[in-house]
Amino acid sequence: MTHDPRLTSALDATPLDSDVYGRRHVIEDVYPTVDAGRYPVKRIVGAPVDVWADIFRDGHDVTVAALRWRREGERGWWTAPMLHVENDRWHGTFVPVELGRHVFAIETWTSGFATWRRDTLAKQKAGQDIALELKEGRALVAAALPRAGDTAGKLQAALHRFDAGEDAGPLLAADLAAAIAAVEPRPDLTWSQAFPMMIERARARAGAWYELFPRNETDDPARHGTFDGVVARLPDIAAMGFDVLYFPPIHPIGTTNRKGKNNALEAEPGDPGSPYAIGAAEGGHDAIHPALGTLDDFRRLVAAARGHGLEIALDFATQCSPDHPWIKQHPEWFRWRPDGSMTSAENPPKKYGDITNPDFYCAERVALWQALRDVVLFWAEQGVRIIRVDNPHTKPFPFWEWMIRDVQARFPDLIFLAEAFTRPKPMKALAKLGFSQSYTYFTWRTGKDELSAYMAELTRHPEREYFRPNFFVNTPDILPYHLQGGEPWMFKSRLALAATLAGSYGVFAGFELLEHVPLAPGKEEYLDSDKYEIRPRDWNAPGHIKDYIAMLNGVRRANPALQQTSNFAFAPVDSPNVIGFVKESVGRDNVVATAVALAPGRHDVWLHVGDMRIGPEGARRPVRAVENLVTGEWRLIEWGGVRLSIDADHDPAVILRCVA
Amino acid sequence: MTHDPRLTSALDATPLDSDVYGRRHVIEDVYPTVDAGRYPVKRIVGAPVDVWADIFRDGHDVTVAALRWRREGERGWWTAPMLHVENDRWHGTFVPVELGRHVFAIETWTSGFATWRRDTLAKQKAGQDIALELKEGRALVAAALPRAGDTAGKLQAALHRFDAGEDAGPLLAADLAAAIAAVEPRPDLTWSQAFPMMIERARARAGAWYELFPRNETDDPARHGTFDGVVARLPDIAAMGFDVLYFPPIHPIGTTNRKGKNNALEAEPGDPGSPYAIGAAEGGHDAIHPALGTLDDFRRLVAAARGHGLEIALDFATQCSPDHPWIKQHPEWFRWRPDGSMTSAENPPKKYGDITNPDFYCAERVALWQALRDVVLFWAEQGVRIIRVDNPHTKPFPFWEWMIRDVQARFPDLIFLAEAFTRPKPMKALAKLGFSQSYTYFTWRTGKDELSAYMAELTRHPEREYFRPNFFVNTPDILPYHLQGGEPWMFKSRLALAATLAGSYGVFAGFELLEHVPLAPGKEEYLDSDKYEIRPRDWNAPGHIKDYIAMLNGVRRANPALQQTSNFAFAPVDSPNVIGFVKESVGRDNVVATAVALAPGRHDVWLHVGDMRIGPEGARRPVRAVENLVTGEWRLIEWGGVRLSIDADHDPAVILRCVA
Repeated sequence: MTHDPRLTSALDATPLDSDVYGRRHVIEDVYPTVDAGRYPVKRIVGAPVDVWADIFRDGHDVTVAALRWRREGERGWWTAPMLHVENDRWHGTFVPVELGRHVFAIETWTSGFATWRRDTLAKQKAGQDIALELKEGRALVAAALPRAGDTAGKLQAALHRFDAGEDAGPLLAADLAAAIAAVEPRPDLTWSQAFPMMIERARARAGAWYELFPRNETDDPARHGTFDGVVARLPDIAAMGFDVLYFPPIHPIGTTNRKGKNNALEAEPGDPGSPYAIGAAEGGHDAIHPALGTLDDFRRLVAAARGHGLEIALDFATQCSPDHPWIKQHPEWFRWRPDGSMTSAENPPKKYGDITNPDFYCAERVALWQALRDVVLFWAEQGVRIIRVDNPHTKPFPFWEWMIRDVQARFPDLIFLAEAFTRPKPMKALAKLGFSQSYTYFTWRTGKDELSAYMAELTRHPEREYFRPNFFVNTPDILPYHLQGGEPWMFKSRLALAATLAGSYGVFAGFELLEHVPLAPGKEEYLDSDKYEIRPRDWNAPGHIKDYIAMLNGVRRANPALQQTSNFAFAPVDSPNVIGFVKESVGRDNVVATAVALAPGRHDVWLHVGDMRIGPEGARRPVRAVENLVTGEWRLIEWGGVRLSIDADHDPAVILRCVA
Repeated sequence: MTHDPRLTSALDATPLDSDVYGRRHVIEDVYPTVDAGRYPVKRIVGAPVDVWADIFRDGHDVTVAALRWRREGERGWWTAPMLHVENDRWHGTFVPVELGRHVFAIETWTSGFATWRRDTLAKQKAGQDIALELKEGRALVAAALPRAGDTAGKLQAALHRFDAGEDAGPLLAADLAAAIAAVEPRPDLTWSQAFPMMIERARARAGAWYELFPRNETDDPARHGTFDGVVARLPDIAAMGFDVLYFPPIHPIGTTNRKGKNNALEAEPGDPGSPYAIGAAEGGHDAIHPALGTLDDFRRLVAAARGHGLEIALDFATQCSPDHPWIKQHPEWFRWRPDGSMTSAENPPKKYGDITNPDFYCAERVALWQALRDVVLFWAEQGVRIIRVDNPHTKPFPFWEWMIRDVQARFPDLIFLAEAFTRPKPMKALAKLGFSQSYTYFTWRTGKDELSAYMAELTRHPEREYFRPNFFVNTPDILPYHLQGGEPWMFKSRLALAATLAGSYGVFAGFELLEHVPLAPGKEEYLDSDKYEIRPRDWNAPGHIKDYIAMLNGVRRANPALQQTSNFAFAPVDSPNVIGFVKESVGRDNVVATAVALAPGRHDVWLHVGDMRIGPEGARRPVRAVENLVTGEWRLIEWGGVRLSIDADHDPAVILRCVA
């Protein structure tokens, strides 16, 4: 019919193979996903996972959809129905019951029988002759028989009854339709891609962290603290209501280029050095600083902490001191300079002569990456199930993605916290690739506007699916400006914000004592930093706010709404100096409204929570009353809110349980 | 070191292979993309494509990125640099110079030399000894030599000068850095996925369409019109300024169950039938209705139209009349009922006995899909380069995706318009999978709010990347309620809206005569529809608005801003009865502000365009004056806008060219 070479050529730009046909249905805009399935969404074991997707096909036939999920590597899939909501949007839900990597997918197909039944009922209603349609329906029932299994009897009974009387009833019965739905052929079955999901334990989402240097647990700066000293301190920490006790590195410390007090380039005799200069003659990342105790002492400490409801978190810092055993055992893992010297860590023109980083892209990288992974496995075997990673943003992303996944395949209850104080996108990238939790900018966010903007960013989609914040009020590295005045109301305000805004939050020891002296004016670092010396303290020094911490942690433990971050909404407050917000538990059975003063003194404000609807899906009602979780006082909602009188100097926070 | 089976097992959940290392850089949030690259973005040949992405890696080394693109199937890639903008966001741009499917990708790598140079300059500035650094730099230059090609001389000269004097100068020179950047090793080169792109000609984005039934081009309803009659009519259509002349199906029409006038179930003798009942003894989809003329006549018509600046668009409707040759030649392509009768198209309880649809998922589907594709190829060979597809949403999406791609691989200048009046998501799915243009809901959107909401939806991301609207004011099937009053201002208002809001818009013949009588009260269909009878008209009947159409199309042709849809912004107008908006050409060299009255009578309004900045990137300035494109009058912007006095009964639109 033609001579145009474009018509007669063998060119077939898009081969017409079975894959083309197998996409009759469109499945798109799937929620929850991160970067179209490139990274896992994060959920907690035992908590429902809601899945939404646009699902449709051409024409008007009846579409059916199901949600499928399984643990990664398993063969069978679990199944739950999906239902059409509106405008081609479907919804389904399931509850993962195991820890570890999972995937979910959506399958959808056309129900030939349901389509036939809907159309035949319409024709019957319109008074049309449906004799031919019934014959077609009979054929559909017969086609479903081979896979019918237990329901074969029901199908056969319908066929017999129809064959006996040619009456429409048996074929059009609703229960026959239900039976056939499960077993009829699905010639145009369409699957979505499989979307990954990390299922973790609840501690990944929420916990109150306390950080201390074990070597400080002594009463004499000349005597190195021990794990036994930490054991003695556990009741005090547990009484404050913390869940996690986190230690900076506990390994032998190098002597070459050891730092002195206040980060001096040269140490004095007796200076203990920075625990981050990991490795010495006594061992490297899998060894314990001899002055702290033995591995058995450490195991005893882990067990004793567990007895106090505390979990131990260890630090994982990949750098090595020049005295680390690996430097000699594996020189191929490090970069060397033309004069044979070691390349030390630097941020030109600054140099950090007491540490060097392994070269993650060296020729022997497979062995290096596995050795680093084995360090984490070693501590996991000692009972550690939380790892805080030091500066992950300066090591390759693929290393973390591989390592976390590999470790969690063995220890699915292991939680990783990323300490990456860097630009927003690398921080988010680390969270996406698998870190359970992340340090944040909260440490420097103080104004109502900037706190609001930051919370909005962390709780929106897609961040809420993968970025779990851990709000530290201070760290050994950071004494933020706003704490340097030492004002108790400010320390309390920061504590209350951290403890109620984020599911996880943290305090570095000394905060409860209102420690606030900077290294120098204009510096956000501590004077006499714990990183470079042994600093015993009087943990009951006058002015401490341990009771306030205990109160906040008690409220957190009693209210699941505060044990998560994403179910968050701002509550209007008529003052720029008070921030208000409401959080609802994942199970929707607990709702807490909080107002926190951001300035000292008295604040008479109006907290608007009355417009909010709370409670289980389908039965959500407006908030009607609130219970003050500290005083126990009950208040009814009037004119859409409650009037609060906050005395920030006494307690900058009001925490209210809302009931409908 | 352990006995825990989790440590000693061979389990390696994530194999540590080269693919893990090859992702050192993160490339994410790439724009423009549709569904993460599942579907192509659409662009016009010769117009710049701006690409944005977040690009970063661990640490602080200097990252370099480039944009790569090529026509699909070609081997070589074109390259353009990408530059960092801010916050890890990078930008690059390129201009596709050929039609057809393209892909673009991003590559990024670390510049070891640039990193070394930056760090060494910092150390030099701080007064440090850089002798060792210079040796390291020398090694980097030497490593770049093997790939240096034309620049090898430059590199060698720098090495010689350094070796002679050990002076920093030659190694730290900026021009050496530039030379090495292009040739140094890229050990951690990371590629993004390849993102697809459809590059089409400008007509895919913009055109004024005129639709007529060729059989009407006669002066006697008893005498079937002909292609020669259409040729005679071309000057009239060209004078109105249209770009595209579109015909409903021109094929032989079936006689079995032929429809009569006004969609009567039985035809009277002499009734011509619906052109959508395709196929008869004279032939099927590749035949011409004998009364219209011959294939030669058609080719002459295509050529004559081209002579008037008009392009012919044909209809592609896959359904067949019971008399279509395929029914006998290929019974395996159709579905048959238990009594041996043909399955006719239906929407139960409604039936369409004059047509049946092929069964796209029949056993012989490969042959069927290819035969349908060949129909399009046949008309392409006759010179047709625009295909309007009838009801694509009731045929499988994979068919369209395959067919359009396959046809465009041969005829990359072929444009497809989807006539899918259905739910929003299937409409968008068709646009995503490859239709160049789409019919829209504009036909029923009348209020300022609903027009605004719809335009916002179509011009936002991602719709703007794939959904090109074609705004029809009426169609043979649709006489919307608002036209049924026959008011000239309303016809003009709808024309002006369609012609200025959307790059493409369309008119079905008779609109210019203000035809407005519905089939029955409450129906949005025409009485005596052209679909079922031959309806000659007096194209110069009193009251016609052909001059108004000519004026609008003239303004469109002279102003590239109106030849696209996406570069669109609302301009505030202080009246709910007047809508205002501004469009800027893709080249940013033409800006048009339009105000259109949505109610009859006089409207004194204020059009705010003074806040808008226009012109080329980097030199955008506020609008300072406007030229009325109809009257030629110039006005300066005062108080941020211009006051307009619109007499809707005379001309409901004011169209202004903006200058900075």
